[in-house]
Amino acid sequence: MYRTKTCGELRLSNMGATVTLAGWVQRSRRMGGMTFVDLRDRYGITQLVFNQDKDADLCEQANKLGREFVIQVTGIVSERSNKNAHIPTGDIEIIVAGMQVLNCAATPPFTIEDDTDGGDDIRMKYRYLDLRRHAVRANLELRHQMTAEVRNYLGGKSFIEVETPMLISSTPEGARDFVVPSRMNPGQFYALPQSPQTFKQLLMVSGFDRYFQIVKCFRDEDLRADRQPEFTQIDCEMSFVEQDDVLCMFEGMTKHLFKSIRNIELTEPFPRMTWADAMKFYGSDKPDIRFGMKIAELPAELLRGHGFAPFNSAAYVGGICAEGAAAYTRKQIDALTDFVKRPQIGAKGLIYARVEADGSLKSSVDKFYSPDELLRIKYLFGAGPGDLILIIYGDDAMKTRKQLSELRLEMGGRLGLRDKNSFACLWVVDFPLLEWSEADGRFYAMHHPFTSPKPEDVHLLDSDPGAVSANAYDMVINGVEVGGGSIRIHDSELQQRMFRLLGFTDEQALARFGFLTNAFRYGAPPHGGIAYGLDRWVSLFAGLDSIRDCIAFPKNTSGRDVMIDAPSTIDASQLEELNLSITAK
Amino acid sequence: MYRTKTCGELRLSNMGATVTLAGWVQRSRRMGGMTFVDLRDRYGITQLVFNQDKDADLCEQANKLGREFVIQVTGIVSERSNKNAHIPTGDIEIIVAGMQVLNCAATPPFTIEDDTDGGDDIRMKYRYLDLRRHAVRANLELRHQMTAEVRNYLGGKSFIEVETPMLISSTPEGARDFVVPSRMNPGQFYALPQSPQTFKQLLMVSGFDRYFQIVKCFRDEDLRADRQPEFTQIDCEMSFVEQDDVLCMFEGMTKHLFKSIRNIELTEPFPRMTWADAMKFYGSDKPDIRFGMKIAELPAELLRGHGFAPFNSAAYVGGICAEGAAAYTRKQIDALTDFVKRPQIGAKGLIYARVEADGSLKSSVDKFYSPDELLRIKYLFGAGPGDLILIIYGDDAMKTRKQLSELRLEMGGRLGLRDKNSFACLWVVDFPLLEWSEADGRFYAMHHPFTSPKPEDVHLLDSDPGAVSANAYDMVINGVEVGGGSIRIHDSELQQRMFRLLGFTDEQALARFGFLTNAFRYGAPPHGGIAYGLDRWVSLFAGLDSIRDCIAFPKNTSGRDVMIDAPSTIDASQLEELNLSITAK
Repeated sequence: MYRTKTCGELRLSNMGATVTLAGWVQRSRRMGGMTFVDLRDRYGITQLVFNQDKDADLCEQANKLGREFVIQVTGIVSERSNKNAHIPTGDIEIIVAGMQVLNCAATPPFTIEDDTDGGDDIRMKYRYLDLRRHAVRANLELRHQMTAEVRNYLGGKSFIEVETPMLISSTPEGARDFVVPSRMNPGQFYALPQSPQTFKQLLMVSGFDRYFQIVKCFRDEDLRADRQPEFTQIDCEMSFVEQDDVLCMFEGMTKHLFKSIRNIELTEPFPRMTWADAMKFYGSDKPDIRFGMKIAELPAELLRGHGFAPFNSAAYVGGICAEGAAAYTRKQIDALTDFVKRPQIGAKGLIYARVEADGSLKSSVDKFYSPDELLRIKYLFGAGPGDLILIIYGDDAMKTRKQLSELRLEMGGRLGLRDKNSFACLWVVDFPLLEWSEADGRFYAMHHPFTSPKPEDVHLLDSDPGAVSANAYDMVINGVEVGGGSIRIHDSELQQRMFRLLGFTDEQALARFGFLTNAFRYGAPPHGGIAYGLDRWVSLFAGLDSIRDCIAFPKNTSGRDVMIDAPSTIDASQLEELNLSITAK
Repeated sequence: MYRTKTCGELRLSNMGATVTLAGWVQRSRRMGGMTFVDLRDRYGITQLVFNQDKDADLCEQANKLGREFVIQVTGIVSERSNKNAHIPTGDIEIIVAGMQVLNCAATPPFTIEDDTDGGDDIRMKYRYLDLRRHAVRANLELRHQMTAEVRNYLGGKSFIEVETPMLISSTPEGARDFVVPSRMNPGQFYALPQSPQTFKQLLMVSGFDRYFQIVKCFRDEDLRADRQPEFTQIDCEMSFVEQDDVLCMFEGMTKHLFKSIRNIELTEPFPRMTWADAMKFYGSDKPDIRFGMKIAELPAELLRGHGFAPFNSAAYVGGICAEGAAAYTRKQIDALTDFVKRPQIGAKGLIYARVEADGSLKSSVDKFYSPDELLRIKYLFGAGPGDLILIIYGDDAMKTRKQLSELRLEMGGRLGLRDKNSFACLWVVDFPLLEWSEADGRFYAMHHPFTSPKPEDVHLLDSDPGAVSANAYDMVINGVEVGGGSIRIHDSELQQRMFRLLGFTDEQALARFGFLTNAFRYGAPPHGGIAYGLDRWVSLFAGLDSIRDCIAFPKNTSGRDVMIDAPSTIDASQLEELNLSITAK
């Protein structure tokens, strides 16, 4: 070992000990014949002292050290006269007696500090330097702790971690697979898994009973800010369970993580909200319930026929009540109007109504409605003096609700109701089984084709498939969908009906999922499970805005790793071996 | 839950309790008005009893159950009159009061028993049924336990598990990468990692200090019996360490695994053997030291000039002494001769010499040598009465030693010296840095291009590169290389010299490894590590002959998953999106 102690562990109790440390030069400064160097490693920072009077040569060497030089020093632990209460090693310093430079360092392109001067692009290109910053490394330490605690919890509940293959064939709904040409099987391709879904179901057929895996998954889709082409799932499945068993098991895991990682004791059961209620009251299937501000719908009979044209023609009018925001200025309300009219949100306009101190309403539609009618609106929102009512209208109820959801989150943020250190967990349940696509003129599975319809709705599968609810559930924390799952179909006939509903011919279903439906013929147990997005969950616990900073080597929005410059071209000989050629665009 | 208890937990102490169980019908039999059903789940087997006299309807239902039906039963735990001492639940049975068939099952294509009647191909096609067999599932449970204990040990030593990317660019020595075409970057490809080598070194540059990862790696090579295109590594790296630190840390991990998994206490330090000694005395860089039978070289001056032509022209003559095998018949020795002359081994012939009870030697070359000369041979091997000396000769010392190694392992097996429940661990150290390829007329890195030469040999890098030893080491257990690693180069100039030695132009080195050598410029710490092959280690602990049965869904020797039929063709539209076309062979 190049060291006897780390840079994070020495205290006053070590005084007088001779120690050897190794690490990076964080900074150095000279003060009247003395040179002070902050030596950094993963565990902390320790101050080194070189004395010009005592050892001029050594001090001169120290004066030549640059930032990020790697050094090894030996010296005696001493009490600092000028203590630093901000760091655990702040009471001591090392009086250095010997030093060896293990490696020099060029000047880094940005400062290695929590508040760095490096922009996003340069930090990604030099990610190995960015990872030296305490703030970034702490995220990855958190990630490590979270996976360790997930394994502790699930291991304690008899779950077995089983590795499923990475080189598979095309998955459900085919598109967006990354494919891997096979050299040994010319013209054929593996696919990288979008999830281990079918394999974990096969493990249930095999009687594994309780399975989990923390596993890389892949999706080749156009990347948004918060997506990566490779991402990590906590993937779980259980046999002989009903929906409630899965929810209880993973509510337990969530509470265990909150307690062990964030030291937050969640004692109450998580609320459960139907998908229909989530859409109605929050305009979202992943409501942030850290705050209320529920959406209220305004009845048509109240609004129509008063000469305010937008309300006369709207299919849906609804709003929220922002408590205590009546003092919002015209300028602030204009900014909100611009916010909801942005193309990403797409509202037609924003109506506001202030509740004055005397309880009367002052609104942008005053001239169309009587004071009594305005008061009815106020009562609908349960609004009181000082509150601000914000109303949006539209031709499509679902779209308008989603616009209101964006407005609600924006107001929640502006009013300080979305504290990153406060957490509200929620189960959203009773999702629709199917989603109708106008564009394609067919149904799609809302979760995936293996999700079980609720038994009481099975009779609707032929007559009114859009009305069928699923045994599907999402776990939502602070408006972020951290996990989702379902009870699966375990009957091969029902599974085949489902494939037909989704527009697969029997031949297509056989070709794609034959191994699964075939497996079901040999005695499949009732089973269900859940998968968590680890990246999102870590970033939530870390208080990050993006998942990127809890991933060691992330890709940018073009799917590139700019540090190693991947993807890249390959040799003609490699292409030839794979029986492939590149077609011109 | 569909059950209140599992099929493995009921004991006499539960007598009288009403329980609900769910599982698979292992077998059923009728005996005079009673029907007995063995119900199986992951946790065990419990006997169910149906009584014709008490409930004729229920008993009739039970009589209709087929093998592998999935059922749920409720009943009372009772003491068995006819106890089964072979299973933990053998003292009790369930008097069934109610039953529900959860799923029927077609007759499986092979029996779900430890000794199945299913051949290899059919078991792989129906792997989900094969995995129901206790023997197979036990291997995967062992695998789970081993990874859990690896994480326990390394977590306790401050190692952080960090996920490195799967979509990277071409790795060192380029060939045998699986590639992944990028849709967003036409004409460009990611590569799947053969190992996270460069990334873990970057993490050391980042100051992560102690890293590990249990991670899938990929290699597109023609598969031998014991290789898979995707395999799992326990990948580890440490900073500020010398070779001895790494060996101690991972010797500790190995001992921890032996103790926690196999309950074997290894108290002695593992022996360390130089690569040169391993080749000289065992003809292998991974000697099985469960038994001695070391190779002895016979000096030319003793053998030449006696009229036995093969010895006169041989560059190397060596042999082993098989204790107690003097009684081997002519037929047995002929079989050994055939064994070493097989093309896979390629020896030219086998000379034998029996040590008779009176100490004299009876050999196949008696007529060429005097009794005294034969006795000298006997002494060279330290052979005694009853022993059998086996000698091989050849034109190339290394090749002949490897032939002797095969013969030695064969004899060890025949003499019962290779007990699967006895373990001998060994470090092989001081590997050569480089390997000369006659075919390519260039040096290759014996481990990989990042392995550090021994400091005392650096001066030979230009004058005699083949003589340079490396700070490289392998862990060998029972003749299986379970892990290997090295101290890495952390100096960017030395790294560039190494690239040049390996025939890279500076431009090629920059294009391929520029990010790594560039990273070294910003302060790289001394570092080193090791990687274990998890599949091999599990199969060693499980006593398996192949790694395949400790992998849930393995591929066959053509790289195919015959269960899901991967790889497979993909749609023309997918190819078009990827800007690829398939070239005819």
